[in-house]
Amino acid sequence: MKQITSIQNPFIKSLVLLQEKAKNRKQTGTFLIEGVREISLAVKGRYEIQTILFYPEICSETEARKLAQSAELIEINKEVFQKLSYRDTTEGVLAVAKSKSLQLSGLKLSDTPLILVAEAPEKPGNIGALLRTADAANLDAVIIANPKSDLYNPNIVRSSVGCLFTNQIATASTSEIIAFLKEKNINFYCATLQNSTSYHTQDYTQPTALVVGTEATGLTQEWRDAATQNIIIPMQGEIDSMNVSVAAAILIFEAKRQRGF
Amino acid sequence: MKQITSIQNPFIKSLVLLQEKAKNRKQTGTFLIEGVREISLAVKGRYEIQTILFYPEICSETEARKLAQSAELIEINKEVFQKLSYRDTTEGVLAVAKSKSLQLSGLKLSDTPLILVAEAPEKPGNIGALLRTADAANLDAVIIANPKSDLYNPNIVRSSVGCLFTNQIATASTSEIIAFLKEKNINFYCATLQNSTSYHTQDYTQPTALVVGTEATGLTQEWRDAATQNIIIPMQGEIDSMNVSVAAAILIFEAKRQRGF
Repeated sequence: MKQITSIQNPFIKSLVLLQEKAKNRKQTGTFLIEGVREISLAVKGRYEIQTILFYPEICSETEARKLAQSAELIEINKEVFQKLSYRDTTEGVLAVAKSKSLQLSGLKLSDTPLILVAEAPEKPGNIGALLRTADAANLDAVIIANPKSDLYNPNIVRSSVGCLFTNQIATASTSEIIAFLKEKNINFYCATLQNSTSYHTQDYTQPTALVVGTEATGLTQEWRDAATQNIIIPMQGEIDSMNVSVAAAILIFEAKRQRGF
Repeated sequence: MKQITSIQNPFIKSLVLLQEKAKNRKQTGTFLIEGVREISLAVKGRYEIQTILFYPEICSETEARKLAQSAELIEINKEVFQKLSYRDTTEGVLAVAKSKSLQLSGLKLSDTPLILVAEAPEKPGNIGALLRTADAANLDAVIIANPKSDLYNPNIVRSSVGCLFTNQIATASTSEIIAFLKEKNINFYCATLQNSTSYHTQDYTQPTALVVGTEATGLTQEWRDAATQNIIIPMQGEIDSMNVSVAAAILIFEAKRQRGF
């Protein structure tokens, strides 16, 4: 059993860089996952786990082994664990996983897909929240248009509480996604304030994508021009914007309701 | 014009305590608000503004005066502003406001009220998100059962982006709220996993309260036993819990849909 007890160890230093820099995640094609449930969901979602690091005071070798049979196991001490972990001392286990390519062409859709598209979401926490809702609704896929960070950003991994691994996900440019939806004959409904009709008047029982933009600037013109229909959630208060994950949840569950869950 | 240029000034020290300690907010019956929009919404929501502190490099005396005509104006320097502000240098203005009593008896309800009840929400950010959704839906009231912190906690003020002031709000114990709803003949639907029916099968066009618990432990037995009906949002993914503000939004907008907005 390999043991690492120093945060100066080159492998540990490379893992810190994986957390901090998208460039390093891209170059190596790997990223870090923390927590028992998260790692389990990644395995279930067919992510390849290369290495499991466990801190035996909290997570036993047996527990660590169970998570991913074929991964290399490394025992780490408290100092190394605390250097790598966000949650401090709750679960005692981390994994190095291979990232996926997240291509549109890799998505496997049902006959009547329900898809969420989010354009350039600003905050990692918002993407995590969208992925949680998408999991709950068992959407066919979540597509991120013009992403501002790579999906394996540790804040997205964390805030999605494992739903990064339970959803089918793709990233692409807005133009590519519009072409993809048109080619597949998927209606797409763009949440926007301009020239839009109330979301609850539309029929989402056909192949459907629901498209949301950022809180600050909404969707780009390209989406609004191409939409099957622009839709709006009627707002009757003093404030004129809604959290993007809340807006997406309202639209997604209206579609689910129309489809009888 | 009074000017304060030292963070050692006793008044400034008292404001720092208002931010940090619920006890001080309670003793003085005051709290701090930051930002032009937030202060404007507080004035609109009939909060009494006692003092406006402005940093003239960012917010002019004229702008500060416009916010609240009868408040005392105090000019502060950069050091004092940065000590008190969270947002650093975006808006340059803070207000000391008088808190409200937030009694159930103070709520003014329509003939067919739609109310959100949240029991013991864990995170200030969740309360802020609930208040944003409640504003968008123009709910009659938001009632917090067994609150874990006072509503004038700076993280709630901040995360509500002013919706703390645009909603009618009350706090009380679960028993008091159940008695209140029964007395007013308001149906209440409790979101829970136990003995519940899908939320979309219920009629929310009558006087209605939607009741949500915490992500970790859900609603207490007292709510579940007293409910007009326990309801559930069908979850079809790998994860078994939904963010409380997302769940509340789905329920609230289903009620709004049934009521034709």
